[in-house]
Amino acid sequence: LHLLSPKGFVAGAVHAGIKSTKKNDVGLLICDAPIPATTAAVFTTNKVFAAPVKIGREHIAASNGRLRGVVVNSGNANACTGAQGDRDARRMCSLTAMQVGCDPIQVLPCSTGIIGHLMPMQKIERGIVGAASKLGSSESHALQFADAILTTDTKRKAASTRIKIGKTQITVAGVCKGSGMIGPRMSLGMPPHATMLAFLTTDADIPAATLRRVLASSADRSFNAVTVDDHTSTNDTAVILASGMSGATVRSAHEVARFASALNEVCKSLAYQIAADGEGATKVVRIEVRGARTQSDANSIARAIANSPLVKCAMNGNDPNWGRIVSAAGLCGADFDPNRATLWLQGTKVFHRGRPVLFNAAKVSRSLDAKEVVVDLACNLAKSHATVWTCDLSKDYVTINADYHT
Amino acid sequence: LHLLSPKGFVAGAVHAGIKSTKKNDVGLLICDAPIPATTAAVFTTNKVFAAPVKIGREHIAASNGRLRGVVVNSGNANACTGAQGDRDARRMCSLTAMQVGCDPIQVLPCSTGIIGHLMPMQKIERGIVGAASKLGSSESHALQFADAILTTDTKRKAASTRIKIGKTQITVAGVCKGSGMIGPRMSLGMPPHATMLAFLTTDADIPAATLRRVLASSADRSFNAVTVDDHTSTNDTAVILASGMSGATVRSAHEVARFASALNEVCKSLAYQIAADGEGATKVVRIEVRGARTQSDANSIARAIANSPLVKCAMNGNDPNWGRIVSAAGLCGADFDPNRATLWLQGTKVFHRGRPVLFNAAKVSRSLDAKEVVVDLACNLAKSHATVWTCDLSKDYVTINADYHT
Repeated sequence: LHLLSPKGFVAGAVHAGIKSTKKNDVGLLICDAPIPATTAAVFTTNKVFAAPVKIGREHIAASNGRLRGVVVNSGNANACTGAQGDRDARRMCSLTAMQVGCDPIQVLPCSTGIIGHLMPMQKIERGIVGAASKLGSSESHALQFADAILTTDTKRKAASTRIKIGKTQITVAGVCKGSGMIGPRMSLGMPPHATMLAFLTTDADIPAATLRRVLASSADRSFNAVTVDDHTSTNDTAVILASGMSGATVRSAHEVARFASALNEVCKSLAYQIAADGEGATKVVRIEVRGARTQSDANSIARAIANSPLVKCAMNGNDPNWGRIVSAAGLCGADFDPNRATLWLQGTKVFHRGRPVLFNAAKVSRSLDAKEVVVDLACNLAKSHATVWTCDLSKDYVTINADYHT
Repeated sequence: LHLLSPKGFVAGAVHAGIKSTKKNDVGLLICDAPIPATTAAVFTTNKVFAAPVKIGREHIAASNGRLRGVVVNSGNANACTGAQGDRDARRMCSLTAMQVGCDPIQVLPCSTGIIGHLMPMQKIERGIVGAASKLGSSESHALQFADAILTTDTKRKAASTRIKIGKTQITVAGVCKGSGMIGPRMSLGMPPHATMLAFLTTDADIPAATLRRVLASSADRSFNAVTVDDHTSTNDTAVILASGMSGATVRSAHEVARFASALNEVCKSLAYQIAADGEGATKVVRIEVRGARTQSDANSIARAIANSPLVKCAMNGNDPNWGRIVSAAGLCGADFDPNRATLWLQGTKVFHRGRPVLFNAAKVSRSLDAKEVVVDLACNLAKSHATVWTCDLSKDYVTINADYHT
């Protein structure tokens, strides 16, 4: 299974010379079904949002959520580029529309890369023409597209699942990118900034309003629950295209729940892959906050722990420094009482109701030397729960971000 | 001028063996005026606050803000230590009271160091007796006390100033500690956690209510405007003792303003020293946000920039990466419009009204290779202004915090 397994999609990608590496940097993902795909997208809430985000939101609205596809480039974010940036993002759409035969408002543009540089439009134009000439629906096409969206990522990121709606099989698939400037806070209504991009496909037939609701909910539990450096990007976008080509309709509450569950699975896998490939990361740290007073409190506490450089460095050093975790829970303003809380690290209880617990520090330290570390905090105040994925903070993160140059 | 220059104070400090180094780790700062000092203190707002913070707040209230002095130790924070921690903090006060002849509620306890370990009370007791036997008012006594409060700090931190109130000279002085776990959010009403400690002395005669108000305001503009890792500690405390021994009374609005200005100067100098000595720091980064819609917006924007690991790494690498700064301003939820904003780095305009400005990147990069870097962002929305001090994020920060062990 891959991005193009759902019926009704083709993709193509090329290296157009925007990135200094030889890797793909322009890609097209197109719905080749008889009618355009039902589309929903969430965008960054950063008030500094890139031109493609602005134009993308316009196009989703103007096309009434029915798109032919997506044009994406990596290497340049087209952010903080003024009116020329807007024109360039529109031009990416019209060039794509010309190639695939649709209205420019039926194309969503996405960009990721450096901020504050005008787009190299000659290269972009060549890239779009090249990618259009290579459209296909094989796994190789899916991989080529997945590679075209990467920047500092060290790994391609993809996920997919297949379920039955009634007696008909549907597929939900996706690819994404994200490694640094990761602290997405995407919503349906607002514009994006750091960069996390996710492209999702399905051949289910689902109403636009339902798709929007399900995507927003899935994004909150996946992409919006990942943080590498909590720096919400100018370009964050997650978009799902539904071709309807499986013939399965998603209408009843039960069908919607099944579809949502499949989409959650794909989005969570993608989000996890972003945390695992966080800049300089040696491990994923999964923060589980249980028993918080409200959902907002649970999220705040989990994010405060996930974003504490002290906690992240301790994870890098396999240090069971629970004081940093408990104190991070207390600093974010959420309701929290250390005298009612219990904390486990990799399953070992290290703090209970205001007091330390005797534990074998060397053994717990060894257990932290793992690909995934689970920090489990029970607040014992009420019933709200949040999961946030992050990674450790290593010297390599500093190297990558101190030496990257403008 | 030093901490004991204001009339009416003595201090003493010893190495009691709490820290593994040979450095001082227990100190006393005592007001030896005929009547106890008028005292105000601000404490961490972390919901996980250490025992000395809890007891300190009780003593300030119970003594009606008239203290004989402060007992402080470094090497152990007495945080997350349950009921035994409370007893130990009270015992520190009663031991001190016995030595100097006062009521235990007239003593404020402060601790800094590791979280979650019971206090080594035999060492503490020996330390308090030893420090009491060494009390004196010389500069050497002030320095000994200043050293006793340090943990990962690489430098002693002190500041002082002298002004005239009417025809009488008064002195305001202070020492502080802080290097990691620095993101103080202290207030009059609430308890503290990461660790920043500041001890301030003055010989002005000032009413308790005025002193509280002036300290809270000064703390907001100084200690609460410093962030190294935005991790509000369990133990943050700033306390000022006013002996009244200069004979100068601070009563009229004009006198209060003059006193406040002197206290601001001392607190800002101490706060700056904390940023400069931030763990792994190679430089201070001063963030000036001007023209924000509200004071809260100005603070949020300045803190978002100061706490972005991407911005801090760029500063470490002398990279004029203004995209990270502008995008940090946009992500915090404050009102911000990039199309109205202008950004200067070390005085060079790099971004103006939504678009990049041509600048000599190599030259600006060289200008960032300095002991202090100024990031100046004009929002052009209204008139609110905030200053926040931070430092760069270096590989040494990771080394210090990944290798520190529990």
